Amino acid sequence: MKRLLLCCAAFGLVTTGEAKVVEQTVEYRDGEVTCRGFLVYDDNLPGPRPATMVIHDWTGLGDFVRDYCRRLAALGYVALAADYYGQGTTAASPQEAGKLAGAVRGTPAMRTRGSAALAVLQQHPRVDRTKVVALGFCFGGTAALQLSYTGAELAGVVSLHGGLTPPEAGDVGKLRARYLILHGADDPHVPPAQVQTFEEALRAAQVDWQLIAYGGAVHAFTNPAAGHDPSRGAAYHEGAAKRSWEHLKLFLAEVCG
Amino acid sequence: MKRLLLCCAAFGLVTTGEAKVVEQTVEYRDGEVTCRGFLVYDDNLPGPRPATMVIHDWTGLGDFVRDYCRRLAALGYVALAADYYGQGTTAASPQEAGKLAGAVRGTPAMRTRGSAALAVLQQHPRVDRTKVVALGFCFGGTAALQLSYTGAELAGVVSLHGGLTPPEAGDVGKLRARYLILHGADDPHVPPAQVQTFEEALRAAQVDWQLIAYGGAVHAFTNPAAGHDPSRGAAYHEGAAKRSWEHLKLFLAEVCG
Repeated sequence: MKRLLLCCAAFGLVTTGEAKVVEQTVEYRDGEVTCRGFLVYDDNLPGPRPATMVIHDWTGLGDFVRDYCRRLAALGYVALAADYYGQGTTAASPQEAGKLAGAVRGTPAMRTRGSAALAVLQQHPRVDRTKVVALGFCFGGTAALQLSYTGAELAGVVSLHGGLTPPEAGDVGKLRARYLILHGADDPHVPPAQVQTFEEALRAAQVDWQLIAYGGAVHAFTNPAAGHDPSRGAAYHEGAAKRSWEHLKLFLAEVCG
Repeated sequence: MKRLLLCCAAFGLVTTGEAKVVEQTVEYRDGEVTCRGFLVYDDNLPGPRPATMVIHDWTGLGDFVRDYCRRLAALGYVALAADYYGQGTTAASPQEAGKLAGAVRGTPAMRTRGSAALAVLQQHPRVDRTKVVALGFCFGGTAALQLSYTGAELAGVVSLHGGLTPPEAGDVGKLRARYLILHGADDPHVPPAQVQTFEEALRAAQVDWQLIAYGGAVHAFTNPAAGHDPSRGAAYHEGAAKRSWEHLKLFLAEVCG
C-alpha cells in the first residue's frame, strides 16, 4: 500500500462555546509525495460524522481553504483540506500557481492525490465513510470530479467554479456520487459549450446532478482574494459567494442526511 | 381604473397550533373579466408581511396551486393564487387547458391579468408591497416573467419549469426584480437553445439572476398530477420537486429579508 497515514504533525485545540474544535495538520503519502492536509472537526459532537474533503484552487492549500474547512466543521462536518501539491506547497504568484497546477492536471496524480486524501478521511475514527462529500474550488472542482470518476465512495461531489471536465468513456459506469455544480454564468474559463458538453455527459451517465448558474459571476467568485474586477475573468462576487454557501449547505444536508 | 377589488366572496378560518390561517376567495377585475383569486395568510403574524403571488399552470387555479399557497402561508408569507382565466375556470382535459392558455398567452391579457392580481396583493393591509415575489408553474412561470417585464414592483420572480420567453427590446430597461429560474434540465418544452437565449437576455439586461437545472427532470416536475413517465415530456420528479422547494425558500428569505 503506497498511501500511508504518517502522523499528526501539528495539533491545535480551540474551544468555542459548546464546540471543542480540533485542528490538525495531517501528513499522508501519495507514492513518493508527502502531503500535508488540514483536518478540522468538533470534538464535542458524537461520532461517526458526515465529512467533507475540500480541494484547494491552483494556489494550493492556504488560508481560504482552511477557513472554509472551519466553516464546515462549525456545521458539524469533519473537514479535511487535501494537499494536491505535496509538502503543503502554496504559490506566491499566478505563474507559480500555473506551474504547480500544471504538474498535476492531466497526470495520474490528479486522481491518486485525491484518493490518498480521501483514504485519510475515510479511515478517521470520527468519520462515517458512507457520508463523505468531495468539494473543490477552480482546479479543486475539477479534481473533485476526477476523484469521483475513479469510482470513489463519495456521497456527493461539489464543484465551485471548477473546470467541468467530463468523465472518459471508460469511467462512465463508475460514477456513483450525486453532483452539484456551482457555476459562474459569465465564467470565461468555463464557457457555455463546456457546460453543455459536461451536462450531456452526466445525462448519459444517468447520475443525479444539479447545476446552479449565478448570473454576473465569473471564475473564482467565492474568493475575495480574486479581486473585484470581473473583466479580468476571475473575481469575487459577494452575492454568488453567499448563495453558493447556502446551496452547498442544503446539498450537504440532503446527501449526508 | 379598470381593476377593482370587488369583495371577499368566501371566507375560511383554520386554526392550527399558534397559526390562525385565513383562506379567502378574492374577486377582482381585469377589464371586463372577473377573476377569482385564492388568498391565504396567517392572521396571527404581525403585519405587513412579505407576500407571494402564485400563478397556476395551463390547467387553471386548482388544488395544486391552493396547496402551494398554504405551504407558503405556513412559512409566514401572504399568498395569493392569481386567476388568469377568469371566474376561477379550470380545465378538465389537456385540450381545454391548451385552449384556455392559448386565449391568454401572446395577448395583452398575459400581462394585464398579472397586474390586476398584483394590485390586489399590493393593496392588502397585511402586505408589505416592497416584498412581493411572483412565482408560477409552466404557463404561470412564463406569466410571472411577463409581469416583471411590465416594470411591476416585484422583489423577485420565480419560474418553476416555465417557458423562458425573454423580454422584448422595449422592456429591457423596466426589469427590476431578482430572478430565480428553476428548470428541468431534460425539459423538451424548454430546450437548451431557449435557455441560452433567455440567459443572454438577462445578461444583457444586467439584472440579478440564477438558474438551477435539475438533472433528470422534465416539464411540470413539481406536480404529482403530471404522472411519472418522463418520456412523455412532463412528469413529476420527487427529487427536483423537493429541491426546488428548498431553493425557493432560500430565495424568498433572501429577497424578502
